[in-house]
Amino acid sequence: MKKFINSVDTLLEESLSGFAKAHADIIQFNAQPHFIKRRQPATSGKVALISGGGSGHEPLHIGFVGSGMLDAACPGQIFTSPTPDQMLAAAEAVDNGGGVLFIVKNYAGDIMSFEIATEMLSCPNASVIINDDVSLPKTHSTGRRGVAGTLIVEKMLGAAAEKGADLASCKALGEKINRGSASMGVALSSCTVPALGHPTFAINDKEMEMGVGIHGERGLATLPLTNATEIVEHLVNAINGDLNPQKGQSALLHVNGFGATPLMELYLIYELAARHWQNQGVNIVRSLVGNYTTSLDMAGCSITLSVLDDELLGLWDAPVHTANLRWAC
Amino acid sequence: MKKFINSVDTLLEESLSGFAKAHADIIQFNAQPHFIKRRQPATSGKVALISGGGSGHEPLHIGFVGSGMLDAACPGQIFTSPTPDQMLAAAEAVDNGGGVLFIVKNYAGDIMSFEIATEMLSCPNASVIINDDVSLPKTHSTGRRGVAGTLIVEKMLGAAAEKGADLASCKALGEKINRGSASMGVALSSCTVPALGHPTFAINDKEMEMGVGIHGERGLATLPLTNATEIVEHLVNAINGDLNPQKGQSALLHVNGFGATPLMELYLIYELAARHWQNQGVNIVRSLVGNYTTSLDMAGCSITLSVLDDELLGLWDAPVHTANLRWAC
Repeated sequence: MKKFINSVDTLLEESLSGFAKAHADIIQFNAQPHFIKRRQPATSGKVALISGGGSGHEPLHIGFVGSGMLDAACPGQIFTSPTPDQMLAAAEAVDNGGGVLFIVKNYAGDIMSFEIATEMLSCPNASVIINDDVSLPKTHSTGRRGVAGTLIVEKMLGAAAEKGADLASCKALGEKINRGSASMGVALSSCTVPALGHPTFAINDKEMEMGVGIHGERGLATLPLTNATEIVEHLVNAINGDLNPQKGQSALLHVNGFGATPLMELYLIYELAARHWQNQGVNIVRSLVGNYTTSLDMAGCSITLSVLDDELLGLWDAPVHTANLRWAC
Repeated sequence: MKKFINSVDTLLEESLSGFAKAHADIIQFNAQPHFIKRRQPATSGKVALISGGGSGHEPLHIGFVGSGMLDAACPGQIFTSPTPDQMLAAAEAVDNGGGVLFIVKNYAGDIMSFEIATEMLSCPNASVIINDDVSLPKTHSTGRRGVAGTLIVEKMLGAAAEKGADLASCKALGEKINRGSASMGVALSSCTVPALGHPTFAINDKEMEMGVGIHGERGLATLPLTNATEIVEHLVNAINGDLNPQKGQSALLHVNGFGATPLMELYLIYELAARHWQNQGVNIVRSLVGNYTTSLDMAGCSITLSVLDDELLGLWDAPVHTANLRWAC
């Protein structure tokens, strides 16, 4: 295993300390239990947004804490759910009179931890479950996974909460964004979890893993590696099969790198996907290309399409000031 | 070779087209010859800033074109200098009456191409040569290489040009920032240039390449892989040996990933480097952590320290609106 670490046991702590130092103007790090919260206080009565999950997906979620997005993020150990006490402490720290909305990727461990936290929490609260990964059927035993679409929900809900939407409206809006977002991923390599010390699955030089999640699990199918056009067609077709975007509809296209894929390749994937949907009459009016929801050092990417109406477009464009997503006033 | 491409010959074109589509609000892509220029016209008389170099380092330089930074970038083929006609066409497209300043990383090919372009160019022009890589001695036959410090020069010069600094002042300022910046890199893996099809150097599981550049060339020395603390000490000592930052001095600390290193590890490196300089009495007042000057899919990182005075701090903080570096008004 080749990594920049001192020891598996101190990696998360040292990394979070660095994150907190580098972005001390935006966030604060609570060391016991671990959570990152926004530094600039929110307006009184604003709904507080909290997300979290296993580490190893950075910048998700810690990089999205700040004004216009999350109020707090709870990082678990790598690919491991955070504990209920993290979520509870974060909620108590950022509740500002408007209640707390948890944004939870659909994984059994995350769901369970967040549920325990909500049972112990005294302030009004609700949850939005993200399940945008179309590689699994909706009827899958544990449901579909939450992947790169999570960022889109966090960004838009952040804007809505900042504008004063109440807890019930934020929950309904989050569910609407999730329903309108579909993602599909493909990997060229596995990733190496430090505590394991070797790649989580084997894949040879002529194969790709289609329909991967973000935890180094195997995908839907191991397929022969092919050219970018065919790979994009595969991903786009899976997304279309679920989301069925209509001619004339506006959408946000998000090409997400898993960690080890050069930006040059991600823009090529973007080009091919955008071309496909444009030919289909879908208007790609907003874009996000880069490493946002990663799987440590995995080579691969996912495509997310998220349909937009005027409300969602306005929320996407609203100012955001976090460590890893920042735009204007 | 596992990459998302259709063919080696079309990779750059398809990728630049995707970049242009994704960021059409910020930049324009000129297809023949290749250059990216800012969409929002600059104030009349503003010095135009142009950089360029081989592709494969994205987001450098194309991702830094926009208001408050570069006016144009000329991408060559992967790890290959752009041609003089690209630079000439870009210069003619963005000259706005204030002359053109070329920001050139110190590589023989880049220097030669830019020199030929300047000889053919009729408007006033000058160049700043970046050579922040301290892994090579200043007396090296072709001089030291320009690496991650280039971004810092581009950002600060962008702000100065936007504020109306003239050509001679921009050149002098660029040279001052370059003198005050020192970088050192280490790689855990090689990278694979698509036209070559295999890693550019061999390295085993227990080795690291110390003092690497950004073109997949071997480093200063192949050393046994060690823990992050010792690696950071090595890098920091090399930087200190060159830059010799003083107690009480303010500085910007930039930890740059080469492409395949998880953000979690980059923040750990940041933590250790920041701690080191803080203990030494250097005030780390600004930070930049992420993949900015990459080498395709190389695992590794560089550390850059750039000393700051009030003028440079103001220039760093000034608004910037590009595809990959963006902050506020």
